[in-house]
Amino acid sequence: MVSNAARIAGRHFLQIPGPTPVPDRILRAMDMPTIDHRGPEFQKLGRRVLDGMKSIFKCAGPVIIYPASGTGAWEAALVNVLNAGDKVLMFETGHFATLWKNMALKLGLQPEFIASDWRIGTDPAAIEARLRADKSHEIKAVCVVHNETSTGCITHVGEIRKAIDAAGHPALLMVDTISSLASIDYRHDEWGVDVTVSGSQKGLMLPPGLSFNALSEKALAAARASTMPKLFWSWEEMLPHNKNGFFPYTPGTNLLYGLAEAIDMLHEEGLENVFARHDRHAEATRRAVTAWGLEILCREPKYYSSSLTAVLMPEGQNADDFRRIALEKFDISLGTGLTKLAGRVFRIGHLGDTNDLTILGALAGVEMGLGLAGVPHKKGGVQAAMDYLAAQAKKAA
Amino acid sequence: MVSNAARIAGRHFLQIPGPTPVPDRILRAMDMPTIDHRGPEFQKLGRRVLDGMKSIFKCAGPVIIYPASGTGAWEAALVNVLNAGDKVLMFETGHFATLWKNMALKLGLQPEFIASDWRIGTDPAAIEARLRADKSHEIKAVCVVHNETSTGCITHVGEIRKAIDAAGHPALLMVDTISSLASIDYRHDEWGVDVTVSGSQKGLMLPPGLSFNALSEKALAAARASTMPKLFWSWEEMLPHNKNGFFPYTPGTNLLYGLAEAIDMLHEEGLENVFARHDRHAEATRRAVTAWGLEILCREPKYYSSSLTAVLMPEGQNADDFRRIALEKFDISLGTGLTKLAGRVFRIGHLGDTNDLTILGALAGVEMGLGLAGVPHKKGGVQAAMDYLAAQAKKAA
Amino acid sequence: MVSNAARIAGRHFLQIPGPTPVPDRILRAMDMPTIDHRGPEFQKLGRRVLDGMKSIFKCAGPVIIYPASGTGAWEAALVNVLNAGDKVLMFETGHFATLWKNMALKLGLQPEFIASDWRIGTDPAAIEARLRADKSHEIKAVCVVHNETSTGCITHVGEIRKAIDAAGHPALLMVDTISSLASIDYRHDEWGVDVTVSGSQKGLMLPPGLSFNALSEKALAAARASTMPKLFWSWEEMLPHNKNGFFPYTPGTNLLYGLAEAIDMLHEEGLENVFARHDRHAEATRRAVTAWGLEILCREPKYYSSSLTAVLMPEGQNADDFRRIALEKFDISLGTGLTKLAGRVFRIGHLGDTNDLTILGALAGVEMGLGLAGVPHKKGGVQAAMDYLAAQAKKAA
Amino acid sequence: MVSNAARIAGRHFLQIPGPTPVPDRILRAMDMPTIDHRGPEFQKLGRRVLDGMKSIFKCAGPVIIYPASGTGAWEAALVNVLNAGDKVLMFETGHFATLWKNMALKLGLQPEFIASDWRIGTDPAAIEARLRADKSHEIKAVCVVHNETSTGCITHVGEIRKAIDAAGHPALLMVDTISSLASIDYRHDEWGVDVTVSGSQKGLMLPPGLSFNALSEKALAAARASTMPKLFWSWEEMLPHNKNGFFPYTPGTNLLYGLAEAIDMLHEEGLENVFARHDRHAEATRRAVTAWGLEILCREPKYYSSSLTAVLMPEGQNADDFRRIALEKFDISLGTGLTKLAGRVFRIGHLGDTNDLTILGALAGVEMGLGLAGVPHKKGGVQAAMDYLAAQAKKAA
Repeated sequence: MVSNAARIAGRHFLQIPGPTPVPDRILRAMDMPTIDHRGPEFQKLGRRVLDGMKSIFKCAGPVIIYPASGTGAWEAALVNVLNAGDKVLMFETGHFATLWKNMALKLGLQPEFIASDWRIGTDPAAIEARLRADKSHEIKAVCVVHNETSTGCITHVGEIRKAIDAAGHPALLMVDTISSLASIDYRHDEWGVDVTVSGSQKGLMLPPGLSFNALSEKALAAARASTMPKLFWSWEEMLPHNKNGFFPYTPGTNLLYGLAEAIDMLHEEGLENVFARHDRHAEATRRAVTAWGLEILCREPKYYSSSLTAVLMPEGQNADDFRRIALEKFDISLGTGLTKLAGRVFRIGHLGDTNDLTILGALAGVEMGLGLAGVPHKKGGVQAAMDYLAAQAKKAA
Repeated sequence: MVSNAARIAGRHFLQIPGPTPVPDRILRAMDMPTIDHRGPEFQKLGRRVLDGMKSIFKCAGPVIIYPASGTGAWEAALVNVLNAGDKVLMFETGHFATLWKNMALKLGLQPEFIASDWRIGTDPAAIEARLRADKSHEIKAVCVVHNETSTGCITHVGEIRKAIDAAGHPALLMVDTISSLASIDYRHDEWGVDVTVSGSQKGLMLPPGLSFNALSEKALAAARASTMPKLFWSWEEMLPHNKNGFFPYTPGTNLLYGLAEAIDMLHEEGLENVFARHDRHAEATRRAVTAWGLEILCREPKYYSSSLTAVLMPEGQNADDFRRIALEKFDISLGTGLTKLAGRVFRIGHLGDTNDLTILGALAGVEMGLGLAGVPHKKGGVQAAMDYLAAQAKKAA
Repeated sequence: MVSNAARIAGRHFLQIPGPTPVPDRILRAMDMPTIDHRGPEFQKLGRRVLDGMKSIFKCAGPVIIYPASGTGAWEAALVNVLNAGDKVLMFETGHFATLWKNMALKLGLQPEFIASDWRIGTDPAAIEARLRADKSHEIKAVCVVHNETSTGCITHVGEIRKAIDAAGHPALLMVDTISSLASIDYRHDEWGVDVTVSGSQKGLMLPPGLSFNALSEKALAAARASTMPKLFWSWEEMLPHNKNGFFPYTPGTNLLYGLAEAIDMLHEEGLENVFARHDRHAEATRRAVTAWGLEILCREPKYYSSSLTAVLMPEGQNADDFRRIALEKFDISLGTGLTKLAGRVFRIGHLGDTNDLTILGALAGVEMGLGLAGVPHKKGGVQAAMDYLAAQAKKAA
Repeated sequence: MVSNAARIAGRHFLQIPGPTPVPDRILRAMDMPTIDHRGPEFQKLGRRVLDGMKSIFKCAGPVIIYPASGTGAWEAALVNVLNAGDKVLMFETGHFATLWKNMALKLGLQPEFIASDWRIGTDPAAIEARLRADKSHEIKAVCVVHNETSTGCITHVGEIRKAIDAAGHPALLMVDTISSLASIDYRHDEWGVDVTVSGSQKGLMLPPGLSFNALSEKALAAARASTMPKLFWSWEEMLPHNKNGFFPYTPGTNLLYGLAEAIDMLHEEGLENVFARHDRHAEATRRAVTAWGLEILCREPKYYSSSLTAVLMPEGQNADDFRRIALEKFDISLGTGLTKLAGRVFRIGHLGDTNDLTILGALAGVEMGLGLAGVPHKKGGVQAAMDYLAAQAKKAA
């Protein structure tokens, strides 16, 4: 372990919007000898996770599991279905949408980026308008971020599907669910998504190191026509091996042990209960923010994220000074503001394996930290969150 | 692991006054192959823990480590220094003092029990008076509980020492520190204690399964004259083996791995810092209780415990109904009222490896639970605790 | 963890006759947060292990689980059913029988010890003869060691039962199965045993720290009449709590997690398969010893132990020198010769969670170590064991 | 964990040439909460592993750590320094050299593959001859596999360096050390390697999931001129972040905990000792193979690998039948023959965290398995290995 020169007592509050706290059951499942990835015991595991992930994405088609972190799955989505110079339509929801757009550029695609102010999710009307204008169908894919981790705004993927359909456009729909899968309701098949991208370290409650592509038939057809250079990310390499529960190259065996456990745990709790829990903690957090008199970055309730809440600092206050004080005084990690938002927002992660009292402890850390950092605010945020959570608990009786 | 039919998300809040939350470092240290307890690697471990425990008890003499839980160390203390029919003086601080007295009876001793109302620690004046009256020195030992886990009242051991000295009485002083060691300041040698009893599962942050006797020269002399039947608990069996780092019978090897780690961790934090942290969390808890308008069981501040706070329920309210609701709704375990106090108090443990935000999460669980259980109280307990902890954090700057 | 100044690569071969190698599944089961031992989750665990242990002892009556290592369970067996000055009949199978006898003396009983040469198990004829001579039934209990860990000789408990019955004697039958339970066939009820003593760290594959008493109706009746001082060991204290899955004092919670897992694992393999596996490894080991031209300490095959094999050194050779060399050169721990046998024998443990290739690796360590230590022997021991194990594996086809 | 319907006792023998057995210390180091990868604690960890890996590659320049398995690091090496259509010179050492060549093709490069019979390492003379013929320096890189995992033949990288220099050719030298790093002596700087590729799951004793590129100045210069599309693999993205101990996207945090521990462990043992240990186990294995009368696939001793030994089956015998029997009967995983060698060879891995007795247990599994599978062979392989290892142990005295 990384050594602690001077020990800090108690459990760290990891309230960034991922990686999220890994439950003991998952850590223990991973803490097992690595097995032969070409043997019969592995085959059972391989089948279990490859099948199990379909129940999480809510898809019937194949799910690709990469022994790589999430950025890789973004790259995989692009290089498997597109060709050099292809136009892709993207929407500037925030830092991660921007990174994905920049990646598309680096990979030789032509991303078209609909500008926005980082305070809402993808606007379906803007997507529809742009597609309608694309008479010659030069746009090959629409790429959106389901939950923009830098801002706490979600995109309503079902609406994007409708926008594409309304425009009568054949573009593929590709969705990043890295910080939403298994936290916020998601339906790959029902919403007609062609490629869903995700990662292990958020709603799936694992350490980072696995990432995913869930595929539609249309995506598979596009892949057959794609000529972009690739091997590690190639679905074509993966799928024949996956059929038997194996992988074409060494898989992330121990993370797969954890993934099998995570899938079981999500179903033990029930996916709908998982989503409701995230909604509840998000609402409690927003009530605290409002009680403090601070502003939520996401400016329209319809776009509120249940994974995280980004909070705007009052004018003249530096978010990172506050975050540093909260970390030093109360051993809580909060998310930093990224690029455009650096210093101006902090982000409270409330996703993954957590519960009411942990969220309240975290909000207490924020409230006390605001005070110590001299950030103008009103007390009562924790109280507001408690009032809400207690009322919800009462209802659940 | 014990299976979870329907999974509850997040980390359980274990706020009983022990066993306490075991830090990951300690669990991981224990999660290692068992070694030969007669080999050279064990010998290093044995020496390390036998020596290390002296720094925790603050004693120069030997510490006995039993592969048994704390009740055993109580028994060991009695059977090693006393003889059948010996009189021992005890003080009714609460449930555990009563259990120890009952044990003395069962073992054929004659405990004399100074009655009290379970709302203070041991009264030194009562001890002194009784010893002064014992002209013939029939009383062989004074046995007190440093921190009465059933009530949250501490005994000032230094004052008991003074009382014995003032009475000019030769009785041995025996102290139970099961729920205080490594949480509340304790000084075996300085306070002239003859036998200190303790266990692994509280301030030492280990699972239950190890217990301790720290010994004075006088205790060792008494042991040589003791004729009570014993083998497992016999110091005489232990000490010659301990000299070389070994044990006369199979030790609790994996718990000893954890103990070695725990001793390191306590010194990394610094024992004085550990005590100050416990004091701070106790005060925060009492402020919450007071804000709720509830009564602290311990009726004199000088006896307040830094390990736990026992809270009296308002008339007509059942503590266990409340505890059950808190557990079901907020996944928090609180201590039950024991025997005389059953249904009338609940106990909030704030000892072991914890921190401000965990304590605040726990207090939020209590505050919301009181509401759901319909227990008359005022809101604002968490806020009061936050105000106090934030002020303390500011001072520490 | 205990640090390794200069690291030795690979996994240590722990070939002492206990503690045995703890399987990863059990270590991981134990590596979980400690829970409230008075709460509903603990209750399920308590019931599971209290019931589960009956299937291991093959008994219908209660099993007591102590949060203490095995020596304690010896003491518990004696102090619960006997009274000061009671005569108990014991047989000198070796070091552990002698320790138990010495304990009985220390506890104020009158053990009568039938002498033997430490090279056989208990002789039923000797027991019968002595009991027949005890016309006045002064002997209250016959205490035997099922598997004498110091010598590798077993006692046929069914024959002892027959001897007692043949003598028409009412003595209780008490059996130590510390190094045999879950390794060698054992039947508490069928063999009419009154108290069976055992521990966690051998066939149960756990670290040390739990020990057991399995009880008959007759033992329970005797306990009601017993007046020996006791509390920690008292069945009377335990049983009412155990009925609900709880314990009268803090139990060894994390070890109980491991015990629940161990019971499952033994039944997954099947107890009969577990016994057959131990028999096979014992026979393979004896074939190696014979091939080396060394002498097995146990001098009659009917007494051969399936848990361990003690090997006599050739005249003039020191067993501990050899053991030290084997440890230094090949990272294998072998059992030392105890008291009378010190320096004259070494013991090969082949019990607990092991398999053919591990046993062969261990035998290779012994064979090479004999060579390096200059102990006169013939090569071919490993080859003989391989021939036997391969033949057995073939049969199993 | 993956469940065991019917449990098999004991520890599995994982004798494939990787993944290798993960030591408990490393598994435990990984079994810790994931931390904020943008916080100060992570930064310490990042610096520690980024620096530490230089001591393993023996290089002064930067090491890139990917949160991806080894195949990715192959791809990274190619796409960072080359351009579409570039010629690369490769040598057909076996299956993995072929895969790398195929990858180069897929990525749009023009690999030139010097054919060989899979029974030797790279022939330096062939490399030199080809480079001398390449007057116009069309060949941009020479790519060799240090240890060909499919055959057990090594390439002497220093000789390849000399061959390139002798030809006066400016090609980059790229080396795959996936199954050799930290097992077989390797010197990135001394041998003038430009890109060394490696992975976590072999000599580094970790689970799969991390991979590496070690870079020379020349490689960095080539990277600046490379135009191949990339982002996840891009050194340019990585290096500025790495300077501060951070990563441009989510790193494999828990695997990095393990890596930090692994680097410490390798230095505790001493890299030279690690290499000598692998040499010893390889020689012991070859002596066993020779004693069995079987043929080692590697046909020239100068190319013998210390990581694994591939063994040719006698005519008419199927290697996979034998492997299946060994797995079923003795719970040992051996490596399969890959593509051209399918069914004709099996591979014995003797790399990573292992020791003499484990290797002997494994060889016993092979010897007994050969017998059960009816493969013609002579006995005595284990004996030959024991004789050798005992002699080596004696020398070490």
